[in-house]
Amino acid sequence: MERITVTLGERSYPITIAAGLFSDPASFLPLKSGAQVMVVTNETLAPLYLNPVRAILEHAGIIVDQVILPDGEQYKTLAVLERIFTALLEKPHGRDTTLIALGGGVIGDMAGFAAASYQRGVRFIQVPTTLLAQVDSSVGGKTAVNHPLGKNMIGAFYQPASVIIDLDCLKSLPPRELSSGLAEVIKYGIILDYAFFVWLEEHMDSLLALDPDALSYCIRRCCELKAEVVAADERETGLRALLNLGHTYGHAIETHMGYGNWLHGEAVAAGMVMAAHAARRLGQFSADDLLRVTGLLARAGLPVAGPEGMAPEEYLPHMMRDKKVVSGKLRLILPQGLGKAEVRAGVPDDIVLASIADCRT
Amino acid sequence: MERITVTLGERSYPITIAAGLFSDPASFLPLKSGAQVMVVTNETLAPLYLNPVRAILEHAGIIVDQVILPDGEQYKTLAVLERIFTALLEKPHGRDTTLIALGGGVIGDMAGFAAASYQRGVRFIQVPTTLLAQVDSSVGGKTAVNHPLGKNMIGAFYQPASVIIDLDCLKSLPPRELSSGLAEVIKYGIILDYAFFVWLEEHMDSLLALDPDALSYCIRRCCELKAEVVAADERETGLRALLNLGHTYGHAIETHMGYGNWLHGEAVAAGMVMAAHAARRLGQFSADDLLRVTGLLARAGLPVAGPEGMAPEEYLPHMMRDKKVVSGKLRLILPQGLGKAEVRAGVPDDIVLASIADCRT
Ligand SMILES: NC(=O)c1ccc[n+]([C@@H]2O[C@H](COP(=O)([O-])OP(=O)(O)OC[C@H]3O[C@@H](n4cnc5c(N)ncnc54)[C@H](O)[C@@H]3O)[C@@H](O)[C@H]2O)c1
Ligand SMILES: NC(=O)c1ccc[n+]([C@@H]2O[C@H](COP(=O)([O-])OP(=O)(O)OC[C@H]3O[C@@H](n4cnc5c(N)ncnc54)[C@H](O)[C@@H]3O)[C@@H](O)[C@H]2O)c1
Ligand SMILES: [Zn+2]
Ligand SMILES: [Zn+2]
Repeated sequence: MERITVTLGERSYPITIAAGLFSDPASFLPLKSGAQVMVVTNETLAPLYLNPVRAILEHAGIIVDQVILPDGEQYKTLAVLERIFTALLEKPHGRDTTLIALGGGVIGDMAGFAAASYQRGVRFIQVPTTLLAQVDSSVGGKTAVNHPLGKNMIGAFYQPASVIIDLDCLKSLPPRELSSGLAEVIKYGIILDYAFFVWLEEHMDSLLALDPDALSYCIRRCCELKAEVVAADERETGLRALLNLGHTYGHAIETHMGYGNWLHGEAVAAGMVMAAHAARRLGQFSADDLLRVTGLLARAGLPVAGPEGMAPEEYLPHMMRDKKVVSGKLRLILPQGLGKAEVRAGVPDDIVLASIADCRT
Repeated sequence: MERITVTLGERSYPITIAAGLFSDPASFLPLKSGAQVMVVTNETLAPLYLNPVRAILEHAGIIVDQVILPDGEQYKTLAVLERIFTALLEKPHGRDTTLIALGGGVIGDMAGFAAASYQRGVRFIQVPTTLLAQVDSSVGGKTAVNHPLGKNMIGAFYQPASVIIDLDCLKSLPPRELSSGLAEVIKYGIILDYAFFVWLEEHMDSLLALDPDALSYCIRRCCELKAEVVAADERETGLRALLNLGHTYGHAIETHMGYGNWLHGEAVAAGMVMAAHAARRLGQFSADDLLRVTGLLARAGLPVAGPEGMAPEEYLPHMMRDKKVVSGKLRLILPQGLGKAEVRAGVPDDIVLASIADCRT
């Protein structure tokens, strides 16, 4: 078992990583007998994991209710969020309730925002079941829902009380979803940790084969890196923005294609290649490193080019709606060689357009 | 001009109270030329105050957009909130935008929650136009929308950057709304400040006549008292709960009657009389003080009994949904003589029922 702490003063919390956590009654400590919880999950995960999770909670004397949402990014909306509030109020659950997010990033983001907003804030626990959620979305306290005009536009910074990562979950995860998570994994190597990038080049095959030792190390390292960044910059005023490498381009792809057609990690993978091209054009990223990045992403089963038929000009209006736009000015995350990155304001439009054109299929 | 500071460390902010603030270009400092703002208001207030407010902002070189919501507590919902997000995203407004809440408590609560959630938090300024909003809802950072199953169930603690109180606004306020605000004013006297209660007994007629000196003192004193309580207990874990005197009963009335039939302050007034009866039955409130409370509320034009035909048993299920319920146990705010109050757990149901029966018409 691996255990890491996200250090945020009073709001510090543990991340526990191991196989078999869903059958260990200690996983959900410090919930106490008599406590009330609401498990938020979706229609895909309920038949797989809801019963075991309910069983260990009920065994500990906890009163468990559940709300099962439809599965998909297109349901990450205010309207579906309201169903969580309705389930809470129907019982009713008071201010001392705990929400448990059992699912991928969509469930984590929604249950987290519901917990932030229900009666102005109740406790919540993340139980991420996708690789992407385990290495990224469940750590750091960003929660959100989408708006028809933009992804993750409505939300809160709200930290969980703990994160419980059961490696066994990944066995049922579709391979495309595993790859999507690997995009965020590779991202950490590019922006923060060259040694980890090299480790990934060496262990990509073990990860794809779900080797438990490789997975456990990989998830721990990503959580450590993310925890450090979050501890240094909880509300994303500086350093934390680096975690958005590839995301400004990627959000344009996701929005243009409609939620659910390109997976988040797939869009981010293509976006990271675009950002690398922009960095190369600005003279801060070598052609060799560009090949290593595209090579590793491709081995992880990820796209290294944008969607066919999406013209560079179609990216810009979406990119201008990005949260990193300040006073109408686009700011991009750009790599500076492998293992280092920067936030850069005022990248000229023609460089942005060219970087997209560089990776069309 | 009166100026008070709400002391909350980094999140401290000023409250400015004066007549004529809507024609003073300095009111909206420190907004700078070139800044983007979104004024959130409603259909009643727009024809009265939107143009003057827009004019002083535009005169200062600020880029002003507006969103005009329908008027009424029944529109304080997630669905109407989404219109604010749509307006922000259509322009689009970035993370550096400022929301200005121009209206009563409904607009303040909604614009505040929108500001807390838009892109996970943007700056906002409260411009309260009802007495209730000026002395209560605009100060302290509670924001929320309603759910069909309960008032203010979805929201955030989120502090404004400043509060701007123009006394001239009150001239257009319907008398019933003025009285509703006076309920919260009287509440401060009962729970925190006997001398202020006496001052109110002496100056109620001046307040009802909108005497500027009386109003100015009264609003300042209420803001000071609320600011002290909020500074001591921002997230309502203790002291701040006292501000809910009468509100647990009051919310039951509001929910039972349907939003908009009983005004918030009217329901709170009746609720405070009920709480005073409960306190009297528990031996901590004299019959004399009870008469002074009902007398002052009645002079302010407020009800001192619950709605006709609402049976005591009909209050309880609504009261149990109150946010002060912890692990299924009701906690009530009860006065302890005039100028002092307590949070009390485990008040027996029969005392609660009797306190409601005590004030039926
Ligand atoms: N909050 C953050 O910091 C942050 C960071 C990155 C991404 N995100 C958000 O996360 C979301 C993407 O998350 P995701 O990639 O986990 O997608 P997801 O939650 O939609 O899950 C992907 C699919 O896998 C299914 N699934 C999940 N776990 C499974 C399992 N163990 N076995 C079988 N099927 C399983 C889900 O039902 C879904 O169909 C996006 O909405 C994105 O905006 C948030
Ligand atoms: N956040 C808090 O701490 C807090 C505290 C108390 C109450 N509240 C909330 O505040 C709301 C009640 O606020 P309210 O009493 O201000 O009601 P309100 O906002 O509905 O305003 C009352 C009516 O007066 C009108 N109006 C407002 N200003 C006017 C003016 N200057 N001239 C003419 N008409 C005017 C409004 O359009 C409305 O029709 C409730 O939703 C309550 O939950 C919040
Ligand atoms: Zn991501
Ligand atoms: Zn009130």
